[in-house]
Amino acid sequence: MSLKVYYDLMSQPARAVLLFCKVNKIPFTPKPVALRNYEHQTEEYGLISPFRKVPAIQDGDFTLTESVAILQYLADRYQCPDHWYPKDIKARSKVQEYMAWQHWNTRMHCAAVFINEVLLPKASGNPPDEGKLRKHVAAMNATLTNIENVFLKDTPYISGHQISIADLLGVCEVVQVSASGRDIAADHPKVAAWIKRIREELNPHFDEVMSVIIRVRDKSLKRQKSKL
Amino acid sequence: MSLKVYYDLMSQPARAVLLFCKVNKIPFTPKPVALRNYEHQTEEYGLISPFRKVPAIQDGDFTLTESVAILQYLADRYQCPDHWYPKDIKARSKVQEYMAWQHWNTRMHCAAVFINEVLLPKASGNPPDEGKLRKHVAAMNATLTNIENVFLKDTPYISGHQISIADLLGVCEVVQVSASGRDIAADHPKVAAWIKRIREELNPHFDEVMSVIIRVRDKSLKRQKSKL
Repeated sequence: MSLKVYYDLMSQPARAVLLFCKVNKIPFTPKPVALRNYEHQTEEYGLISPFRKVPAIQDGDFTLTESVAILQYLADRYQCPDHWYPKDIKARSKVQEYMAWQHWNTRMHCAAVFINEVLLPKASGNPPDEGKLRKHVAAMNATLTNIENVFLKDTPYISGHQISIADLLGVCEVVQVSASGRDIAADHPKVAAWIKRIREELNPHFDEVMSVIIRVRDKSLKRQKSKL
Repeated sequence: MSLKVYYDLMSQPARAVLLFCKVNKIPFTPKPVALRNYEHQTEEYGLISPFRKVPAIQDGDFTLTESVAILQYLADRYQCPDHWYPKDIKARSKVQEYMAWQHWNTRMHCAAVFINEVLLPKASGNPPDEGKLRKHVAAMNATLTNIENVFLKDTPYISGHQISIADLLGVCEVVQVSASGRDIAADHPKVAAWIKRIREELNPHFDEVMSVIIRVRDKSLKRQKSKL
Protein backbone atom coordinates (compact mmCIF):
# COMPACT_ATOMS: atom_id res chain seq x y z
CA MET A 1 0.00 0.00 0.00
CA SER A 2 1.54 3.25 -1.05
CA LEU A 3 -0.36 5.58 1.35
CA LYS A 4 1.13 5.86 4.84
CA VAL A 5 -0.74 7.73 7.59
CA TYR A 6 1.27 8.96 10.58
CA TYR A 7 -0.95 9.55 13.60
CA ASP A 8 -1.53 9.31 17.33
CA LEU A 9 -5.11 8.63 18.50
CA MET A 10 -4.66 11.36 21.13
CA SER A 11 -4.39 13.99 18.36
CA GLN A 12 -7.72 15.48 17.29
CA PRO A 13 -6.75 16.24 13.65
CA ALA A 14 -5.02 12.86 13.33
CA ARG A 15 -8.31 11.20 14.34
CA ALA A 16 -10.15 13.22 11.69
CA VAL A 17 -7.76 11.95 8.99
CA LEU A 18 -7.93 8.34 10.22
CA LEU A 19 -11.72 8.48 10.40
CA PHE A 20 -11.88 9.81 6.85
CA CYS A 21 -9.65 6.99 5.53
CA LYS A 22 -11.61 4.29 7.35
CA VAL A 23 -15.07 5.55 6.36
CA ASN A 24 -14.00 5.91 2.73
CA LYS A 25 -12.18 2.56 2.69
CA ILE A 26 -8.97 4.22 1.50
CA PRO A 27 -6.24 1.57 1.78
CA PHE A 28 -3.37 2.80 3.96
CA THR A 29 -0.51 1.59 6.13
CA PRO A 30 -1.03 2.90 9.67
CA LYS A 31 2.11 4.50 11.13
CA PRO A 32 1.46 5.22 14.80
CA VAL A 33 3.68 7.95 16.27
CA ALA A 34 3.44 7.82 20.08
CA LEU A 35 3.49 11.44 21.25
CA ARG A 36 3.78 10.27 24.89
CA ASN A 37 7.11 8.61 23.98
CA TYR A 38 8.25 11.71 22.01
CA GLU A 39 8.40 9.65 18.81
CA HIS A 40 7.42 12.81 16.89
CA GLN A 41 10.68 14.43 18.04
CA THR A 42 13.01 11.97 16.32
CA GLU A 43 15.29 13.03 13.47
CA GLU A 44 13.66 10.37 11.31
CA TYR A 45 10.14 11.75 11.83
CA GLY A 46 11.45 15.29 11.21
CA LEU A 47 12.18 14.23 7.62
CA ILE A 48 8.47 13.48 7.15
CA SER A 49 7.00 16.31 9.25
CA PRO A 50 9.46 19.24 9.58
CA PHE A 51 7.47 20.73 12.47
CA ARG A 52 7.19 17.28 14.09
CA LYS A 53 3.40 17.22 14.25
CA VAL A 54 0.82 14.55 13.55
CA PRO A 55 -0.95 13.81 11.30
CA ALA A 56 1.23 13.53 8.22
CA ILE A 57 0.90 11.37 5.14
CA GLN A 58 3.19 9.88 2.53
CA ASP A 59 1.71 8.88 -0.78
CA GLY A 60 4.59 7.30 -2.68
CA ASP A 61 7.27 10.01 -2.55
CA PHE A 62 4.76 12.80 -1.85
CA THR A 63 4.72 13.99 1.76
CA LEU A 64 2.05 16.25 3.24
CA THR A 65 1.39 17.72 6.70
CA GLU A 66 -1.50 19.79 8.10
CA SER A 67 -4.80 17.96 8.58
CA VAL A 68 -6.80 20.51 6.56
CA ALA A 69 -4.51 20.06 3.54
CA ILE A 70 -4.40 16.27 4.01
CA LEU A 71 -8.20 15.90 4.07
CA GLN A 72 -8.58 17.99 0.92
CA TYR A 73 -5.83 15.97 -0.77
CA LEU A 74 -7.31 12.59 0.15
CA ALA A 75 -10.86 13.57 -0.90
CA ASP A 76 -9.63 14.66 -4.34
CA ARG A 77 -6.97 11.97 -4.80
CA TYR A 78 -9.29 9.05 -3.96
CA GLN A 79 -12.33 10.60 -5.61
CA CYS A 80 -14.43 10.15 -2.49
CA PRO A 81 -18.20 10.79 -2.61
CA ASP A 82 -18.74 14.42 -3.57
CA HIS A 83 -20.40 15.54 -0.32
CA TRP A 84 -17.10 15.13 1.60
CA TYR A 85 -15.46 17.92 -0.39
CA PRO A 86 -17.80 19.10 -3.16
CA LYS A 87 -16.57 19.85 -6.67
CA ASP A 88 -19.06 22.75 -6.97
CA ILE A 89 -16.99 25.88 -6.21
CA LYS A 90 -19.53 27.52 -3.89
CA ALA A 91 -20.27 24.38 -1.89
CA ARG A 92 -16.52 23.66 -1.65
CA SER A 93 -15.87 27.21 -0.45
CA LYS A 94 -18.27 26.75 2.45
CA VAL A 95 -16.25 23.69 3.58
CA GLN A 96 -13.03 25.73 3.23
CA GLU A 97 -14.58 28.65 5.16
CA TYR A 98 -15.14 26.50 8.26
CA MET A 99 -11.75 24.79 7.92
CA ALA A 100 -10.04 28.22 7.92
CA TRP A 101 -12.23 29.54 10.76
CA GLN A 102 -11.73 26.56 13.08
CA HIS A 103 -7.98 27.13 13.66
CA TRP A 104 -8.52 30.14 15.93
CA ASN A 105 -11.87 28.94 17.27
CA THR A 106 -12.92 25.28 17.67
CA ARG A 107 -9.34 24.01 17.58
CA MET A 108 -7.84 26.73 19.74
CA HIS A 109 -10.46 26.79 22.50
CA CYS A 110 -11.38 23.09 22.74
CA ALA A 111 -7.68 22.16 22.84
CA ALA A 112 -7.04 24.75 25.58
CA VAL A 113 -9.80 23.23 27.75
CA PHE A 114 -8.49 19.70 27.17
CA ILE A 115 -4.88 20.68 27.93
CA ASN A 116 -5.78 22.56 31.11
CA GLU A 117 -8.38 20.09 32.36
CA VAL A 118 -6.78 16.75 31.40
CA LEU A 119 -3.18 16.90 30.14
CA LEU A 120 -1.55 19.36 32.56
CA PRO A 121 -3.16 17.88 35.71
CA LYS A 122 -2.07 14.40 34.56
CA ALA A 123 1.51 15.57 33.93
CA SER A 124 1.85 17.59 37.15
CA GLY A 125 -0.30 15.57 39.53
CA ASN A 126 -2.01 18.82 40.57
CA PRO A 127 -5.66 19.77 40.01
CA PRO A 128 -6.43 22.20 37.14
CA ASP A 129 -5.75 25.93 37.57
CA GLU A 130 -9.41 26.94 38.06
CA GLY A 131 -8.96 30.58 36.98
CA LYS A 132 -7.28 29.67 33.70
CA LEU A 133 -9.70 26.83 33.05
CA ARG A 134 -12.73 29.08 33.58
CA LYS A 135 -11.40 31.51 30.95
CA HIS A 136 -10.81 28.72 28.41
CA VAL A 137 -14.23 27.14 29.07
CA ALA A 138 -15.91 30.51 28.47
CA ALA A 139 -14.07 30.90 25.14
CA MET A 140 -14.97 27.33 24.16
CA ASN A 141 -18.64 27.87 25.02
CA ALA A 142 -18.68 31.03 22.90
CA THR A 143 -17.23 29.00 20.01
CA LEU A 144 -19.82 26.23 20.44
CA THR A 145 -22.58 28.86 20.46
CA ASN A 146 -21.12 30.30 17.24
CA ILE A 147 -21.13 26.83 15.66
CA GLU A 148 -24.81 26.46 16.62
CA ASN A 149 -25.86 29.95 15.51
CA VAL A 150 -23.84 30.23 12.30
CA PHE A 151 -22.62 26.93 10.87
CA LEU A 152 -25.46 24.70 12.13
CA LYS A 153 -28.09 27.44 11.94
CA ASP A 154 -30.14 26.03 9.07
CA THR A 155 -28.42 22.75 8.25
CA PRO A 156 -27.67 19.45 10.01
CA TYR A 157 -23.96 19.63 9.04
CA ILE A 158 -21.35 22.41 9.13
CA SER A 159 -21.48 23.22 5.44
CA GLY A 160 -24.84 21.92 4.33
CA HIS A 161 -27.20 19.00 4.20
CA GLN A 162 -24.53 16.31 3.98
CA ILE A 163 -21.44 15.49 5.98
CA SER A 164 -18.11 16.94 4.83
CA ILE A 165 -14.46 16.98 5.92
CA ALA A 166 -15.30 20.17 7.88
CA ASP A 167 -17.57 18.11 10.16
CA LEU A 168 -14.81 15.58 10.80
CA LEU A 169 -12.35 18.27 11.87
CA GLY A 170 -15.00 19.93 14.03
CA VAL A 171 -16.35 16.84 15.75
CA CYS A 172 -12.88 15.48 16.62
CA GLU A 173 -12.02 18.74 18.43
CA VAL A 174 -15.30 18.95 20.32
CA VAL A 175 -15.47 15.30 21.43
CA GLN A 176 -11.92 15.54 22.85
CA VAL A 177 -13.22 17.89 25.55
CA SER A 178 -15.42 15.13 27.02
CA ALA A 179 -12.24 13.26 28.12
CA SER A 180 -12.47 15.07 31.49
CA GLY A 181 -16.04 13.85 31.92
CA ARG A 182 -17.33 17.32 30.95
CA ASP A 183 -20.85 17.20 29.49
CA ILE A 184 -20.66 19.29 26.30
CA ALA A 185 -24.27 18.50 25.49
CA ALA A 186 -25.68 20.28 28.54
CA ASP A 187 -25.68 23.83 27.17
CA HIS A 188 -25.34 23.10 23.46
CA PRO A 189 -28.16 20.83 22.30
CA LYS A 190 -27.55 21.53 18.60
CA VAL A 191 -23.87 20.58 18.93
CA ALA A 192 -24.88 17.45 20.90
CA ALA A 193 -27.35 16.42 18.18
CA TRP A 194 -24.70 17.07 15.52
CA ILE A 195 -22.17 14.81 17.31
CA LYS A 196 -24.84 12.09 17.70
CA ARG A 197 -25.78 12.37 14.02
CA ILE A 198 -22.16 12.04 12.88
CA ARG A 199 -21.46 9.18 15.28
CA GLU A 200 -24.45 7.17 14.04
CA GLU A 201 -23.55 7.88 10.43
CA LEU A 202 -19.90 6.87 10.79
CA ASN A 203 -20.00 3.99 13.25
CA PRO A 204 -18.30 1.61 13.89
CA HIS A 205 -15.38 3.80 12.72
CA PHE A 206 -16.35 6.76 14.90
CA ASP A 207 -16.16 4.80 18.18
CA GLU A 208 -13.02 3.07 16.97
CA VAL A 209 -10.99 6.27 16.47
CA MET A 210 -12.52 7.82 19.62
CA SER A 211 -11.66 4.76 21.73
CA VAL A 212 -8.81 6.42 23.65
CA ILE A 213 -10.93 9.49 24.45
CA ILE A 214 -13.84 7.28 25.56
CA ARG A 215 -11.48 5.29 27.84
CA VAL A 216 -10.04 8.47 29.40
CA ARG A 217 -13.58 9.86 29.85
CA ASP A 218 -14.82 6.69 31.57
CA LYS A 219 -11.86 6.81 33.97
CA SER A 220 -12.53 10.50 34.71
CA LEU A 221 -16.22 9.83 35.42
CA LYS A 222 -15.35 6.88 37.70
CA ARG A 223 -12.86 9.02 39.65
CA GLN A 224 -15.41 11.84 39.98
CA LYS A 225 -18.07 9.38 41.22
CA SER A 226 -15.74 7.87 43.83
CA LYS A 227 -15.18 11.37 45.22
CA LEU A 228 -18.93 11.97 45.80
CA MET B 1 -20.14 44.40 -11.15
CA SER B 2 -21.42 41.50 -9.20
CA LEU B 3 -18.34 40.88 -7.00
CA LYS B 4 -18.12 43.04 -3.88
CA VAL B 5 -14.97 42.98 -1.72
CA TYR B 6 -15.28 44.17 1.89
CA TYR B 7 -11.92 45.24 3.29
CA ASP B 8 -9.83 47.59 5.37
CA LEU B 9 -6.28 48.29 4.20
CA MET B 10 -5.12 47.85 7.81
CA SER B 11 -6.13 44.16 7.69
CA GLN B 12 -3.39 41.84 6.46
CA PRO B 13 -5.67 39.17 4.93
CA ALA B 14 -7.89 41.86 3.39
CA ARG B 15 -4.81 43.25 1.64
CA ALA B 16 -3.98 39.76 0.32
CA VAL B 17 -7.47 39.47 -1.21
CA LEU B 18 -7.36 43.00 -2.70
CA LEU B 19 -3.89 42.41 -4.12
CA PHE B 20 -5.06 39.17 -5.73
CA CYS B 21 -8.06 40.89 -7.37
CA LYS B 22 -5.97 43.78 -8.67
CA VAL B 23 -3.11 41.67 -10.03
CA ASN B 24 -5.57 39.33 -11.75
CA LYS B 25 -7.74 42.18 -13.05
CA ILE B 26 -10.83 40.68 -11.44
CA PRO B 27 -13.56 43.31 -11.71
CA PHE B 28 -14.98 44.17 -8.27
CA THR B 29 -16.78 46.87 -6.34
CA PRO B 30 -14.59 47.95 -3.42
CA LYS B 31 -16.49 48.10 -0.13
CA PRO B 32 -14.22 49.68 2.47
CA VAL B 33 -15.15 48.82 6.08
CA ALA B 34 -13.34 51.23 8.43
CA LEU B 35 -12.29 49.15 11.43
CA ARG B 36 -11.18 52.33 13.27
CA ASN B 37 -14.79 53.57 13.06
CA TYR B 38 -16.16 50.16 14.14
CA GLU B 39 -18.00 49.81 10.82
CA HIS B 40 -17.45 46.04 11.07
CA GLN B 41 -19.57 46.01 14.22
CA THR B 42 -22.79 47.23 12.57
CA GLU B 43 -25.87 45.02 12.32
CA GLU B 44 -25.77 45.49 8.55
CA TYR B 45 -22.21 44.18 8.24
CA GLY B 46 -23.07 41.28 10.54
CA LEU B 47 -25.43 40.02 7.83
CA ILE B 48 -22.44 39.73 5.46
CA SER B 49 -19.80 38.59 7.97
CA PRO B 50 -21.38 36.92 11.02
CA PHE B 51 -18.14 37.21 13.01
CA ARG B 52 -17.74 40.83 11.85
CA LYS B 53 -14.33 40.39 10.30
CA VAL B 54 -12.73 41.61 7.08
CA PRO B 55 -12.24 40.53 4.38
CA ALA B 56 -15.55 39.20 3.10
CA ILE B 57 -16.91 38.94 -0.42
CA GLN B 58 -20.31 38.85 -2.07
CA ASP B 59 -20.57 37.36 -5.52
CA GLY B 60 -24.19 37.86 -6.48
CA ASP B 61 -26.09 36.28 -3.62
CA PHE B 62 -23.12 34.16 -2.50
CA THR B 63 -21.35 35.43 0.61
CA LEU B 64 -17.98 34.17 1.83
CA THR B 65 -15.67 35.04 4.72
CA GLU B 66 -12.16 33.87 5.69
CA SER B 67 -9.31 35.03 3.45
CA VAL B 68 -8.02 31.50 2.82
CA ALA B 69 -11.42 30.36 1.53
CA ILE B 70 -11.91 33.61 -0.43
CA LEU B 71 -8.56 33.34 -2.26
CA GLN B 72 -9.25 29.71 -3.21
CA TYR B 73 -12.73 30.67 -4.40
CA LEU B 74 -11.56 33.63 -6.51
CA ALA B 75 -8.70 31.67 -8.12
CA ASP B 76 -11.11 28.92 -9.22
CA ARG B 77 -14.10 31.14 -10.01
CA TYR B 78 -12.14 33.55 -12.24
CA GLN B 79 -9.88 30.85 -13.69
CA CYS B 80 -6.75 32.78 -12.80
CA PRO B 81 -3.34 31.62 -14.10
CA ASP B 82 -2.70 28.14 -12.75
CA HIS B 83 0.34 29.00 -10.61
CA TRP B 84 -1.82 31.01 -8.19
CA TYR B 85 -3.70 27.88 -7.11
CA PRO B 86 -2.61 24.91 -9.21
CA LYS B 87 -5.11 22.37 -10.54
CA ASP B 88 -2.57 19.54 -10.06
CA ILE B 89 -3.59 17.93 -6.74
CA LYS B 90 -0.07 17.66 -5.30
CA ALA B 91 0.96 21.20 -6.20
CA ARG B 92 -2.39 22.50 -4.88
CA SER B 93 -1.90 20.59 -1.63
CA LYS B 94 1.41 22.34 -1.00
CA VAL B 95 -0.38 25.72 -1.26
CA GLN B 96 -3.07 24.44 1.13
CA GLU B 97 -0.42 23.12 3.54
CA TYR B 98 1.08 26.59 4.04
CA MET B 99 -2.36 28.24 4.22
CA ALA B 100 -3.33 25.86 7.05
CA TRP B 101 0.04 26.23 8.81
CA GLN B 102 0.13 30.04 8.75
CA HIS B 103 -2.87 30.55 11.08
CA TRP B 104 -0.96 29.51 14.20
CA ASN B 105 2.42 30.73 12.92
CA THR B 106 2.95 33.65 10.50
CA ARG B 107 -0.46 35.15 11.19
CA MET B 108 -0.46 34.60 14.96
CA HIS B 109 3.06 35.83 15.69
CA CYS B 110 3.41 38.68 13.17
CA ALA B 111 0.01 40.06 14.25
CA ALA B 112 1.02 39.83 17.93
CA VAL B 113 4.16 41.91 17.28
CA PHE B 114 2.18 44.50 15.28
CA ILE B 115 -0.54 44.75 17.93
CA ASN B 116 1.92 45.11 20.81
CA GLU B 117 4.37 47.41 19.02
CA VAL B 118 2.00 49.63 17.03
CA LEU B 119 -1.72 49.31 17.81
CA LEU B 120 -1.73 49.15 21.63
CA PRO B 121 0.82 51.98 22.13
CA LYS B 122 -1.20 54.13 19.69
CA ALA B 123 -4.47 53.40 21.52
CA SER B 124 -3.07 53.85 25.05
CA GLY B 125 -0.46 56.57 24.48
CA ASN B 126 2.00 54.40 26.43
CA PRO B 127 5.17 52.73 25.08
CA PRO B 128 5.02 48.98 24.32
CA ASP B 129 5.19 46.46 27.18
CA GLU B 130 8.80 45.40 26.56
CA GLY B 131 8.52 42.00 28.26
CA LYS B 132 5.48 40.97 26.26
CA LEU B 133 6.90 42.39 23.04
CA ARG B 134 10.18 40.48 23.47
CA LYS B 135 8.24 37.21 23.78
CA HIS B 136 6.20 37.91 20.65
CA VAL B 137 9.27 38.99 18.65
CA ALA B 138 11.05 35.75 19.59
CA ALA B 139 8.04 33.69 18.41
CA MET B 140 7.87 35.71 15.19
CA ASN B 141 11.58 35.25 14.52
CA ALA B 142 11.22 31.50 15.01
CA THR B 143 8.36 31.53 12.48
CA LEU B 144 10.42 33.53 9.95
CA THR B 145 13.29 31.07 10.40
CA ASN B 146 10.84 28.22 9.77
CA ILE B 147 9.64 29.92 6.59
CA GLU B 148 13.25 30.21 5.42
CA ASN B 149 14.26 26.66 6.36
CA VAL B 150 11.14 24.81 5.28
CA PHE B 151 8.91 26.67 2.83
CA LEU B 152 11.62 28.73 1.07
CA LYS B 153 14.32 26.07 1.51
CA ASP B 154 14.69 25.08 -2.15
CA THR B 155 12.29 27.39 -3.97
CA PRO B 156 11.85 31.14 -4.49
CA TYR B 157 8.18 30.99 -3.44
CA ILE B 158 6.34 29.32 -0.56
CA SER B 159 5.00 26.40 -2.57
CA GLY B 160 7.32 26.18 -5.52
CA HIS B 161 8.89 28.02 -8.42
CA GLN B 162 6.00 30.37 -9.08
CA ILE B 163 3.97 32.72 -6.92
CA SER B 164 0.73 31.42 -5.36
CA ILE B 165 -2.02 32.64 -3.05
CA ALA B 166 0.07 31.23 -0.17
CA ASP B 167 2.74 33.86 -0.87
CA LEU B 168 0.15 36.65 -0.83
CA LEU B 169 -1.15 35.61 2.59
CA GLY B 170 2.39 35.24 3.90
CA VAL B 171 3.84 38.47 2.58
CA CYS B 172 0.93 40.60 3.80
CA GLU B 173 1.44 39.31 7.37
CA VAL B 174 5.21 39.80 7.35
CA VAL B 175 5.25 43.28 5.78
CA GLN B 176 2.73 44.51 8.39
CA VAL B 177 5.42 44.15 11.08
CA SER B 178 7.55 46.84 9.42
CA ALA B 179 4.92 49.46 10.37
CA SER B 180 6.84 50.09 13.60
CA GLY B 181 10.02 50.75 11.62
CA ARG B 182 11.28 47.27 12.54
CA ASP B 183 13.77 45.88 9.99
CA ILE B 184 12.56 42.36 9.25
CA ALA B 185 15.33 41.90 6.68
CA ALA B 186 18.15 42.17 9.21
CA ASP B 187 18.13 38.57 10.44
CA HIS B 188 16.13 36.94 7.66
CA PRO B 189 17.78 37.53 4.29
CA LYS B 190 15.76 34.82 2.52
CA VAL B 191 12.49 36.34 3.74
CA ALA B 192 13.73 39.80 2.71
CA ALA B 193 14.61 38.55 -0.79
CA TRP B 194 11.21 36.84 -1.01
CA ILE B 195 9.37 40.08 -0.13
CA LYS B 196 11.47 42.02 -2.68
CA ARG B 197 10.79 39.39 -5.36
CA ILE B 198 7.03 39.51 -4.77
CA ARG B 199 6.97 43.32 -4.63
CA GLU B 200 8.78 43.63 -7.96
CA GLU B 201 6.54 41.02 -9.55
CA LEU B 202 3.30 42.58 -8.36
CA ASN B 203 3.99 46.30 -8.52
CA PRO B 204 2.37 48.83 -8.83
CA HIS B 205 -0.37 46.88 -7.03
CA PHE B 206 1.88 45.76 -4.17
CA ASP B 207 2.81 49.32 -3.11
CA GLU B 208 -0.78 50.40 -3.63
CA VAL B 209 -2.29 47.94 -1.12
CA MET B 210 0.66 48.42 1.27
CA SER B 211 0.30 52.25 1.14
CA VAL B 212 -1.15 52.57 4.67
CA ILE B 213 1.58 50.35 6.16
CA ILE B 214 4.28 52.29 4.31
CA ARG B 215 2.84 55.59 5.62
CA VAL B 216 2.74 54.31 9.22
CA ARG B 217 6.30 52.95 8.84
CA ASP B 218 7.64 56.27 7.53
CA LYS B 219 6.04 58.11 10.46
CA SER B 220 7.54 55.59 12.92
CA LEU B 221 11.01 55.98 11.41
CA LYS B 222 10.75 59.80 11.49
CA ARG B 223 9.69 59.71 15.15
CA GLN B 224 12.56 57.35 16.00
CA LYS B 225 15.07 59.60 14.19
CA SER B 226 13.89 62.73 16.00
CA LYS B 227 14.51 60.94 19.31
CA LEU B 228 18.17 60.23 18.46
